[in-house]
Amino acid sequence: MLASGGKRVRPVLAMMSCDAVGGNGDDAILGGIAVEILHNFTLVHDDIMDKAEVRRGRPTVHKKWNESAAILSGDCMMALAYRTMLRSSKLDRLAEIVEALTTGVVEVCEGQAFDLEFQDAASVTLEEYLRMIELKTAKMLELAVKVGALIGNGTDAEINALKHYAVALGQAFQILDDLLDATAVVPEFGKTFGGDIIEGKKTYLIIRAVEKRSLLNSFDQALLERFECERGLPKEDVRGMCDLLKRNGILDDARQAVERLTREAHGELAVLSNERGRRMLEQFSIMLLERNY
Amino acid sequence: MLASGGKRVRPVLAMMSCDAVGGNGDDAILGGIAVEILHNFTLVHDDIMDKAEVRRGRPTVHKKWNESAAILSGDCMMALAYRTMLRSSKLDRLAEIVEALTTGVVEVCEGQAFDLEFQDAASVTLEEYLRMIELKTAKMLELAVKVGALIGNGTDAEINALKHYAVALGQAFQILDDLLDATAVVPEFGKTFGGDIIEGKKTYLIIRAVEKRSLLNSFDQALLERFECERGLPKEDVRGMCDLLKRNGILDDARQAVERLTREAHGELAVLSNERGRRMLEQFSIMLLERNY
Repeated sequence: MLASGGKRVRPVLAMMSCDAVGGNGDDAILGGIAVEILHNFTLVHDDIMDKAEVRRGRPTVHKKWNESAAILSGDCMMALAYRTMLRSSKLDRLAEIVEALTTGVVEVCEGQAFDLEFQDAASVTLEEYLRMIELKTAKMLELAVKVGALIGNGTDAEINALKHYAVALGQAFQILDDLLDATAVVPEFGKTFGGDIIEGKKTYLIIRAVEKRSLLNSFDQALLERFECERGLPKEDVRGMCDLLKRNGILDDARQAVERLTREAHGELAVLSNERGRRMLEQFSIMLLERNY
Repeated sequence: MLASGGKRVRPVLAMMSCDAVGGNGDDAILGGIAVEILHNFTLVHDDIMDKAEVRRGRPTVHKKWNESAAILSGDCMMALAYRTMLRSSKLDRLAEIVEALTTGVVEVCEGQAFDLEFQDAASVTLEEYLRMIELKTAKMLELAVKVGALIGNGTDAEINALKHYAVALGQAFQILDDLLDATAVVPEFGKTFGGDIIEGKKTYLIIRAVEKRSLLNSFDQALLERFECERGLPKEDVRGMCDLLKRNGILDDARQAVERLTREAHGELAVLSNERGRRMLEQFSIMLLERNY
């Protein structure tokens, strides 16, 4: 699982956050790795619950081995994350770090529980969706910046600002993911173009389309209704759904939400003491959000 | 899960071990609770893999809710165990304690993996079985005494002795569990008399019977073969299998193994500095192993 790659966003965020509060980013390496292991543990267990067959272009753990192996591997990874964290050399604020790790795990699990509930729910509001991705996606980014900032001995104001930065960044990141599913020219390795539409997932785009239902023409209303009743659409209707989303300004809505959240994230950084660290966090989020795959 | 009871063996062992190395047992309360939470987390996940429907007389978590809820609850419990441990007031040897927790989780998961493999294996030796229960059952007892001894600042010799005590005790405990399944007059609340025989589990008794196969009469050989081919026996044959085990000295073999392991466990305690603590650990294991339900 760990060898299959991923963007390693969380370790990078931990090191930059440590820098940005005036610490030495290198001190946050083990802490960042711990958060990365924890993030990967949640993916192994989520893939079981979501019955996902492919992750990062490879078969998922439960698919390659079996479900028991995936439960047990995930369990071991969580324990290894705590061990890795405790091997860090800078542990002056250990109690706060372990508290953050534990809260992170509990809240990510809550986020996953919401996500599972949403799949069966008749309707989900945009507010509920944002809260879910705050827990499921943003929480591990928040944990990464918090661990970095604690290792760098940041002030409460700095830690708080980084936390808000991470939450806004995480939400922007997820909405962009939803957007790319319906717009990407070169789909990310291992992902299918329009995969969310085929699977009938309640993404930002779909929830927004449902909100705008009364404004759609009758043809679009019928397609949206088919998506809802049949819990997804066949491959040949993906293009039609993408056109619907474009025609009704929903792709633009998503783009604007990503921009707004990015501005919010950047606005939080002003309080940070280290100018260079602050700029790097700003650049990093721009880089993440400019990806088109 | 935690409210459903259990014998609370692990917290008691942690406190007694802390006492026995000259510490104050009360200091080990939170550490003992952390181990108990960790033990209960393993039960929640094991029950999913074992497709168990009842635990301590109640429906298991995945049966009462669903599998995803059980995976997520178990995950949260592990995180809460680490948090509880870190809230302990006596953490001078924190690095060793966290290392022990993590090694404990990894090895219990290995034990469960062996257990799952054994269910499908054509044959299992007694040695493999003892190794499996050393990992799956004894490991959490070992963790409990280790946490207690580290909080009490025991010497390496003391910690080592307690560890061997716990491993022998854990193995004795599991073999007794296997024995009681086939002999208990009043079955433990929530367990069925002969449940292991009905489910076709490879317990100490069955593995020993297979070892003695060539010494059995042809009637007994046929019954054992049926147990193996049909992976268990119907309820009406439980009595017949119990008679087989008794007639061929297998129940006696199990009783002797329990006694031998108990003597081994007690032999380890001589090195402990605190006389009263040592006696309590001795008494505690006698109490545990004298249970007839």
